Amino acid sequence: MSDVRIAPIAETLPEFLEKHQFSAVAVLVDYHTQKFCYPLVKNWLSKHTIIRIKAGEEYKHLHTCETIWEALTNANFDRHGLLLNLGGGVIGDMGGFCAATYKRGIAFAQIPTTLLAQVDASVGGKLGIDFHGFKNHIGVFKLPETVLIDPVFLQTLPERELRSGFAEVIKHCLIADAAKWDEIRRRDLTEQNLSELVAHSVAVKQRVVEQDPTEKGLRKILNFGHTLGHAVETYFLAQPRKRLLHGEAIAVGMVTEAFLAHQKKMIDATLLAEIEEYIFSVYGKVNLTGADVEPIVALTLQDKKNQGKQVRMALLDGPGRCAFDIPVTRAEMRQALDYYRG
Amino acid sequence: MSDVRIAPIAETLPEFLEKHQFSAVAVLVDYHTQKFCYPLVKNWLSKHTIIRIKAGEEYKHLHTCETIWEALTNANFDRHGLLLNLGGGVIGDMGGFCAATYKRGIAFAQIPTTLLAQVDASVGGKLGIDFHGFKNHIGVFKLPETVLIDPVFLQTLPERELRSGFAEVIKHCLIADAAKWDEIRRRDLTEQNLSELVAHSVAVKQRVVEQDPTEKGLRKILNFGHTLGHAVETYFLAQPRKRLLHGEAIAVGMVTEAFLAHQKKMIDATLLAEIEEYIFSVYGKVNLTGADVEPIVALTLQDKKNQGKQVRMALLDGPGRCAFDIPVTRAEMRQALDYYRG
Repeated sequence: MSDVRIAPIAETLPEFLEKHQFSAVAVLVDYHTQKFCYPLVKNWLSKHTIIRIKAGEEYKHLHTCETIWEALTNANFDRHGLLLNLGGGVIGDMGGFCAATYKRGIAFAQIPTTLLAQVDASVGGKLGIDFHGFKNHIGVFKLPETVLIDPVFLQTLPERELRSGFAEVIKHCLIADAAKWDEIRRRDLTEQNLSELVAHSVAVKQRVVEQDPTEKGLRKILNFGHTLGHAVETYFLAQPRKRLLHGEAIAVGMVTEAFLAHQKKMIDATLLAEIEEYIFSVYGKVNLTGADVEPIVALTLQDKKNQGKQVRMALLDGPGRCAFDIPVTRAEMRQALDYYRG
Repeated sequence: MSDVRIAPIAETLPEFLEKHQFSAVAVLVDYHTQKFCYPLVKNWLSKHTIIRIKAGEEYKHLHTCETIWEALTNANFDRHGLLLNLGGGVIGDMGGFCAATYKRGIAFAQIPTTLLAQVDASVGGKLGIDFHGFKNHIGVFKLPETVLIDPVFLQTLPERELRSGFAEVIKHCLIADAAKWDEIRRRDLTEQNLSELVAHSVAVKQRVVEQDPTEKGLRKILNFGHTLGHAVETYFLAQPRKRLLHGEAIAVGMVTEAFLAHQKKMIDATLLAEIEEYIFSVYGKVNLTGADVEPIVALTLQDKKNQGKQVRMALLDGPGRCAFDIPVTRAEMRQALDYYRG
């Protein structure tokens, strides 16, 4: 299991660098993290290379990887170098993938700067990039040397980004901690204790990943909300004006998949109503038309958790509990999306 | 350690497929292996997809990977599929890399069809592709589900290919088995018992790799002949008419690096003379001009075994013995290449 530290970066970063002897250090940033986060990090680094890529999921592809590999090559990076991924999920997933494949693998560390990356992407070793419109289609499992989480970075985030990351916090409560769900659902986002919730989410995720690092079984519960959620996210990726942030799409996924769990008598009407009400209060309702339903359902066929042509989902199995590998038909998915629209 | 079987494919392939339940099978071939090797394999497969790529090291790059990933995506391959890599080192290294990264990793099996791939590339889990002219610059370590070696495929090989693969057989004897070296050096290539030598080479390589799978130490001895050898190979890659096969370049590497070992008093003049004499008798002498020396030396700087800007080599340390991480200067490398030319 990788070492996750939740503490000021001024404490954890120098400590980490001192413990290892890296032959070189590069920092991967985008425009935003170079401006807002890099100043908090650079003081603790000696000589290093900055690799800057364009911000956003639409650049999480092979071509950007080539840029990163080229930069490492030009800096004469050997196998004993370190890549510090300073940013959100895109930076962490793609930087991690590039490090894991450069000269068959160099060390990398994650410094997640968004709420989403702190509570989800940085923990668990899933690395990858999108390919031909499919999310995280090419990648590997590999744990970073360390994950350094500093809540101070959350202050640099726009409110919409924070809200997006909060969807994974909600998910972790729903699948693993009924009492915590009961606590958060009574408060608006602005009233939450985020530092405490980050630690809670990381603990839930680590506990699950530790038992099943390569997602053969249990780890699949972390995908609650993500089968339809990913499909919705991918679908709107092609429509710049309607594009959703990851958590906004997952919010749609959690409502529709909670509906499916209720249909399959896995959760009662009270829990479904609670989930709907809270998620709509935080995220509002995404405008889905009848014409959107079929292409979204079709996109679920490429989900990595499927077996053959059968879509399988992680569905809630009571408050704070989740089951996985539940077969769901296309008709059921259509019904769930229509329910969301109604 | 991956399971390596040396036996007729008609025996090993059906047995392997029966033991596993793959949701789909794809076979990666090039023009040559589709024509000469695929007929020996297809009878043992039920429904499967053929993925054909162009033959040769010059296509071992990211763009060909995209073709392979696309083909797997179009065939709706899920995580429970199998990719069978039917071919030489390029097919095995690149197909393995694509399988190891498709949806964060699907199963793959190596069916090496060249001597080089049977005695070297298919064993040990080094996967990768060339990048910007650097050999195997992007890749991962991952073991295949199985390696199925059938000596019958060697009959499909042109003599020059066989000779190229034989360089790795020579290497395995030189670094690990003085008695076997003494045996093979008294015979021409055509007089060797190849089936027996394939088994010998696989055993040597597995023994080394098992002790150090990710090349932190001991495994580096397998790189004897490869620091200058790779540089020579890369150098001539850009000159189509002078292009060398891998083993032909490694033959140059073994002579020049044996010279360096002698200079450093690690081997005596007798062993150096034996190596020179035998390698020249099998491979002849590559025509290197004075102008070739400097660019070849410069290329060794990108070797993955280096630390910082210091080139480190695996050098013979007596008959059947090899040391690693020996620092070598640019002047020494120039001297070795001049010695070879002399």
